[in-house]
Amino acid sequence: MKYLLQVDFPYEGPFKEEFTKSMTGLAQDIATEEGLIWKIWTENETEKEAGGVYVFDNLKDANRYLDKHTKRLESFGFSNIRAKVFEINEPLSSINNITF
Amino acid sequence: MKYLLQVDFPYEGPFKEEFTKSMTGLAQDIATEEGLIWKIWTENETEKEAGGVYVFDNLKDANRYLDKHTKRLESFGFSNIRAKVFEINEPLSSINNITF
Repeated sequence: MKYLLQVDFPYEGPFKEEFTKSMTGLAQDIATEEGLIWKIWTENETEKEAGGVYVFDNLKDANRYLDKHTKRLESFGFSNIRAKVFEINEPLSSINNITF
Repeated sequence: MKYLLQVDFPYEGPFKEEFTKSMTGLAQDIATEEGLIWKIWTENETEKEAGGVYVFDNLKDANRYLDKHTKRLESFGFSNIRAKVFEINEPLSSINNITF
């Protein structure tokens, strides 16, 4: 069973290339997370929001990471962090061109 | 540039195999959407929520689809539909094991 974690929060920048530069080290650290299949990094300069969509190969690691990442974001000064964990419906997703 | 659309809403079921059966036709229709790269179907029986995470190859189609899908969900009787569109940061996502 695969699990999707979606996280977003108010974010004032930097965006785009500067966001990439400032977060490359964190992305390299996240790449080592147990159970993580991938993370998509999201940003919206107009709405002043950022976040991530993650796929984990088990629920325990998804929840463990969410707890760790929420504390990290709060330590960076972010608040109003919105997060949801879902089970992935793999047969329907497969019809829509993505497999795990 | 790629764009991520995340949608979720209160949902009472069916879940899992019955969800798959009831939504297979809709998934086949969604597979033909202009600009759609993929959709992950999400469900959470405990929280009584469902939704989807989509990647589009352009912003116009992401917004067009969001408008269409919101109206469709409302026509099915769903309400409190929460949706956000983000730009995908491709270099950071690539470090975390997903490319488009």
